[in-house]
Amino acid sequence: MDLTRFFPPAVHNALSYPPPGSWMPPLPPGVIRLSAGYPFPESVPAEDLARAVRDLVAAEGDLPFHYLGSPSMQRLAALLAARLTARGLRVAPEGLLVTAGAAQALDLAARALLGPEDLVAVEAPTYMEALEIFRNYTAHIVGYPVDEEGLQVDLLEEDLQRRRRKGKPLPRLLYTVASFQNPTGAVLSLSRRRRLLELAETYDFLILEDDAYGELSFGPPPVPLKALDTRGRVIHVGSLSKVVAPGLRIGWAVAEPALLSAMAVFKKDLDHPFAWAVAAQYLSGVDMEARVAALRKAYRERRDVMLASLKREMPAGVSWTEPRGGFFVWLRAPGVDTAALLPRALEAGVAYVPGKYFFFEEGPGQDCLRLSFSYLPSEALQEGVALLAKVLRQ
Amino acid sequence: MDLTRFFPPAVHNALSYPPPGSWMPPLPPGVIRLSAGYPFPESVPAEDLARAVRDLVAAEGDLPFHYLGSPSMQRLAALLAARLTARGLRVAPEGLLVTAGAAQALDLAARALLGPEDLVAVEAPTYMEALEIFRNYTAHIVGYPVDEEGLQVDLLEEDLQRRRRKGKPLPRLLYTVASFQNPTGAVLSLSRRRRLLELAETYDFLILEDDAYGELSFGPPPVPLKALDTRGRVIHVGSLSKVVAPGLRIGWAVAEPALLSAMAVFKKDLDHPFAWAVAAQYLSGVDMEARVAALRKAYRERRDVMLASLKREMPAGVSWTEPRGGFFVWLRAPGVDTAALLPRALEAGVAYVPGKYFFFEEGPGQDCLRLSFSYLPSEALQEGVALLAKVLRQ
Repeated sequence: MDLTRFFPPAVHNALSYPPPGSWMPPLPPGVIRLSAGYPFPESVPAEDLARAVRDLVAAEGDLPFHYLGSPSMQRLAALLAARLTARGLRVAPEGLLVTAGAAQALDLAARALLGPEDLVAVEAPTYMEALEIFRNYTAHIVGYPVDEEGLQVDLLEEDLQRRRRKGKPLPRLLYTVASFQNPTGAVLSLSRRRRLLELAETYDFLILEDDAYGELSFGPPPVPLKALDTRGRVIHVGSLSKVVAPGLRIGWAVAEPALLSAMAVFKKDLDHPFAWAVAAQYLSGVDMEARVAALRKAYRERRDVMLASLKREMPAGVSWTEPRGGFFVWLRAPGVDTAALLPRALEAGVAYVPGKYFFFEEGPGQDCLRLSFSYLPSEALQEGVALLAKVLRQ
Repeated sequence: MDLTRFFPPAVHNALSYPPPGSWMPPLPPGVIRLSAGYPFPESVPAEDLARAVRDLVAAEGDLPFHYLGSPSMQRLAALLAARLTARGLRVAPEGLLVTAGAAQALDLAARALLGPEDLVAVEAPTYMEALEIFRNYTAHIVGYPVDEEGLQVDLLEEDLQRRRRKGKPLPRLLYTVASFQNPTGAVLSLSRRRRLLELAETYDFLILEDDAYGELSFGPPPVPLKALDTRGRVIHVGSLSKVVAPGLRIGWAVAEPALLSAMAVFKKDLDHPFAWAVAAQYLSGVDMEARVAALRKAYRERRDVMLASLKREMPAGVSWTEPRGGFFVWLRAPGVDTAALLPRALEAGVAYVPGKYFFFEEGPGQDCLRLSFSYLPSEALQEGVALLAKVLRQ
């Protein structure tokens, strides 16, 4: 039986896009995954997490395996809030909602704020999984360009002015990966951060700050937008995925209580007690400052390897960003259709993410691609870049 | 700043109800929780799960802590499908979606099927957390009464006939806890199951079967609705919460591929790799048949204790159900307002869930309450029932 006739219109709209993750074809075995925006395997403290489980069960018995009742689970929000407070955010005890990774936090914020007619503004390019989330709520998405200083706030302002003048819809929500952007690696400058907050006030929108990479700075760390937010317009989203382990699925949102309450209603009360308790137990016993410092150093070294390889290998005309943190380099190969080229690259043994998938609209980014230096060791980074250069030269 | 003005209408509607879980006041320490619909603490195999984590990390290292890549994680759906196949369901390999507990499966089914104008049919009384989920999608809910044989399918049919005759909306989805219902403990009889499936065909609705307790039968097990479903109208939802551990948050939905695909789009690709891998590792090493048999025996003993206590203690006029499985007894105390009585009961040292919270509409169930025999040991069950009887007698 065809069940699709039971779907309401909003569901048909969501299903009109390619399914999540379909921007990446299945990868042949052995291919060098410059596409993989994952933490490198050894960065994940598997033994320490296994020990945390052992200590947790020794201390709490069956409690972490029930719906509620684990004292460690109850401590997690406070542990996460303390880490954010150290980064300049004011977080009230009831001002942090623990979520299943940053993705659930983005989904809940979208669910609480976006009706089918609402407009959401994104960076162009932007994180494609966020696009997938927004598309599930509204078909109205507008993108604003990014340069080496992040979102081009002056172009945003021009468009907002024009929209207001013409009586066109203004965005209700603006989504930004302000620090070490996915996919460009750009950092929104401090002056643009301040201007963006002013625009939110003038044009009455909220800012969804995805801070997935904010801690992984190779130099002085950027100030989170939420730390500059005096009016409650910023929803700050982060996770332990990049600094501890993605598979635990621990994320959070920091926002005004009224919004967090609405998000909590949709999330309901069924959290992930075991994962929460493990995360809390782990965080209680680790020197996170030292750990994050070591991660910064490791990612910086990988970035250096990739940039040196790009410089050495790439043909003339190809350009790329030089990120000061995070996981990604954004490369432009003028005249090349990077989506059409991908099968040849895979055949040659290297994978990347074609640029077009980071844009809401068809058109831009076709000669761009995203490379990750986060996942692979030096030799593979070097070999992958060399293979890619060879494919681009053909 | 008041962020609620940013909420779309559907969100305002969802927020017009009391927040999830607010049907239960904070419990004073030491109170006997006949309210707690949880598995009893010793039923959770904490040591075995901790061992599963150890073995998993020994075998797979960091893999279970990443987004993807754990071979155990990839095995989970097949392990769960095999258990359902043994219960008579036909489950194609792509016909099972692993979810974060049954609650996420219910939420995703509602999200894929219910627009703001759609009607959803529920049992009256029904599981209040399902009501909380449906209310997040539609304000249109209709309840049909339950007796000792479960949903009164004849009354459902009468109303469907009347609705069709009068051109009134027909339900798009009917939600049922067909086996050992929450809160009454009733089992939908086989003849009613067959009739319900016929009605779904005649009146063109889908059935959301919440099988949370289906395995915990004290006698011959009921046949899942999905096992009788030849037309693809049943969405079967279950979880490991009652037979392994709620805190792992492992649930599933079995349905037609087109519907599961839609649910997967909203769920996205960010699953709970660590919890999945731990569950798979645990399931691979345990004799689940023996385990479930032991659980059936343990819950049956608790049920017997509660029924004997009720018989011994309750004043004349009070009646209750005699469940053949699951966790719950539904008690009626004619003339008593069980919600108004709760503070006195808590003061006396015993907690229950007032009956009114299991109904969508105000009115019915005010003289009813739900008792759980699942969570507490015999002595506490006996003492709790005695305290409740005393309060009811006053």
